[in-house]
Amino acid sequence: MFDQDLARKAEENLNHLRESKPLVHNITNYVVMNYTANALLACGASPVMAHAFEEVEEMVALAGALVLNIGTLSRPWIEAMVKAGRRANALNIPVILDPVGAGATRLRTDTAQRLIKEVSIQVIRGNASEILSLAGAESGPSTKGVDSVHTVDQAVATAMMLAKELRTTLAITGVEDWITDGRRIYKVRNGHALMAQVTGTGCTATAIIGAFLAVTPDPLEAASTALAYFGLAGEKAAVQTLGPGSFQIALLDALYLMQGEDLRSGAKIQR
Amino acid sequence: MFDQDLARKAEENLNHLRESKPLVHNITNYVVMNYTANALLACGASPVMAHAFEEVEEMVALAGALVLNIGTLSRPWIEAMVKAGRRANALNIPVILDPVGAGATRLRTDTAQRLIKEVSIQVIRGNASEILSLAGAESGPSTKGVDSVHTVDQAVATAMMLAKELRTTLAITGVEDWITDGRRIYKVRNGHALMAQVTGTGCTATAIIGAFLAVTPDPLEAASTALAYFGLAGEKAAVQTLGPGSFQIALLDALYLMQGEDLRSGAKIQR
Amino acid sequence: MFDQDLARKAEENLNHLRESKPLVHNITNYVVMNYTANALLACGASPVMAHAFEEVEEMVALAGALVLNIGTLSRPWIEAMVKAGRRANALNIPVILDPVGAGATRLRTDTAQRLIKEVSIQVIRGNASEILSLAGAESGPSTKGVDSVHTVDQAVATAMMLAKELRTTLAITGVEDWITDGRRIYKVRNGHALMAQVTGTGCTATAIIGAFLAVTPDPLEAASTALAYFGLAGEKAAVQTLGPGSFQIALLDALYLMQGEDLRSGAKIQR
Repeated sequence: MFDQDLARKAEENLNHLRESKPLVHNITNYVVMNYTANALLACGASPVMAHAFEEVEEMVALAGALVLNIGTLSRPWIEAMVKAGRRANALNIPVILDPVGAGATRLRTDTAQRLIKEVSIQVIRGNASEILSLAGAESGPSTKGVDSVHTVDQAVATAMMLAKELRTTLAITGVEDWITDGRRIYKVRNGHALMAQVTGTGCTATAIIGAFLAVTPDPLEAASTALAYFGLAGEKAAVQTLGPGSFQIALLDALYLMQGEDLRSGAKIQR
Repeated sequence: MFDQDLARKAEENLNHLRESKPLVHNITNYVVMNYTANALLACGASPVMAHAFEEVEEMVALAGALVLNIGTLSRPWIEAMVKAGRRANALNIPVILDPVGAGATRLRTDTAQRLIKEVSIQVIRGNASEILSLAGAESGPSTKGVDSVHTVDQAVATAMMLAKELRTTLAITGVEDWITDGRRIYKVRNGHALMAQVTGTGCTATAIIGAFLAVTPDPLEAASTALAYFGLAGEKAAVQTLGPGSFQIALLDALYLMQGEDLRSGAKIQR
Repeated sequence: MFDQDLARKAEENLNHLRESKPLVHNITNYVVMNYTANALLACGASPVMAHAFEEVEEMVALAGALVLNIGTLSRPWIEAMVKAGRRANALNIPVILDPVGAGATRLRTDTAQRLIKEVSIQVIRGNASEILSLAGAESGPSTKGVDSVHTVDQAVATAMMLAKELRTTLAITGVEDWITDGRRIYKVRNGHALMAQVTGTGCTATAIIGAFLAVTPDPLEAASTALAYFGLAGEKAAVQTLGPGSFQIALLDALYLMQGEDLRSGAKIQR
């Protein structure tokens, strides 16, 4: 039922991540900084947070991936994100965007759309409403059907069209995660309901995709294997958990303790 | 000994909160953002943190309550708090203020007093010294006796006078919590000593009062039932705790696991 | 093998800290604010975070120590650090610097060097590469051997020369911690490998040294006893830990539960 090749890729990517310990440069929101940094460490990556306009170009040059997250925006941070993103592009360092709250306020929607226009982004991860708010970022609202998604088939078609329009890979996370580059679509069925009860699990998923992007060239594969890893850690954490407090701690432990072979046998990725 | 009507109200409010899942907009300090967001999620509310001057009006319009917390101030944040507060007032969205450190520096005292003057605030939660530093915010120092509180009766009279002067409800938290709108005073006896050993429990109490304000119209009742809920969660968390680390995690679990009927039987509110 | 006098000093300092509960003023990075505040509370100190240019002078005047940490810099924070540091100097309040990431970007190296030049700093804590990047801060690059450290003896000589040059006490932390004032060098062998798997443990060590500086006058002794305490707490936490999530929580518990006599018998400090 689940793809064995992709499960093996997940194992390989995780092992590769732990061997190479890439630096992941995050320009992210205040709420999740600590948890994200701990999650990246638990995965085997090396996190750094730096947002000063004066230093982001130097810092990103040291990194294997750049994570941009608009969860608690302000003007100076936006300019730093653009600057870091452009430098990453020039250096061929992959960039991942988390458009937190896009669609909720104009500042967030505009910032996400500006980043997409001015920076080449390998993966955008968000929930369905955040991702749909990005339609038209590249070329004006051309994606038909955003307001008329009634069936799963329509939703799949819309996601693929939007990825094509935005010329990126979209990771739309929810009960089931959909990852599409406009040509292919993968689905990931790992995860647990308690993940939605902890703040910043979405942002953490984004950061972990960033870490996987640092060690594997295909954005579709990086995003889907990272989400399988994170979701499977959530499943394992939930077993020994009383509520969202103990769950968030057990999740860090599960990311750390996950072996490549656990991931190979537990990854639920479908082509 | 404890009020049965208010205990029932506490149960109702908690159940109502979980059904309606109000968005609580926080402009709060860096130290507690993550914990506060997790605590609000554990309660059943939906937290959002947003402080950009450009977006706070839009964001607060989506919210059921606005939480202002001055724990790590800077100029742009102060202006955003005033702007969001005024917009909340215009939309009849309740506002709660946590004057962290008021009295310790002029910036904090002045900011708290400015917010009280320019925004209509439904509840102010702080410890005794923070609350007393607010005297005179509305009309110059008219509250007599702030410097001469020697008995419990004098303290009660001072608190009620100050609430009247500031035209708000005061929630003065400590070993025993006092909540007064200037006419009535309720006392809450729930809580545990370990709560003072975790950073941001006061700020979290404030945010939870905000969530209760989103589902019940009477500020006195919202604040006292919220504090009973939070204090009772602290009591339950302490049972399975070794120190302040495991306590803070158990507290999130306890907020999440608390059933309405647990709260009805455990709430220690006195009129 | 380990120094009994210094182990007794560690016990005394911890007991003194818990009796006097000094206020520790932190101007630190966003990532670690919450964890640092909780760690200081667990130690028995009273943490405050405040960074506004308008209030840092007033706040530091209330404090027993000032902690400066450059982990997530921006211009306004740098100016606030300088201002707070100068005021602390004028009031004879000890200052400790954590030059996070110095050497990685010019902004960080320059800021650390500027702080050293404009503020009298009692202790600087960092890893070896951060500390070595500070050479020349006072008088141009005079420390020979920074680029040619091949043996432990050369490293010891370099550390002592650098402390002399910077006229401060250096706490260079790693598997083994070295603390030197240029004249003497102490080594601390407490600690556990999991400490490197949690974000901000270095920053937390710095803050705890700050708390110890507030209760004991000798920077060398304050830093080495604080590091023994923190490292021993790490050892105790690791016993009951599954991974870095549960470890970070157990570490807070261990700081809180540590008794003076545990520290006297467990401190591994060498002259």
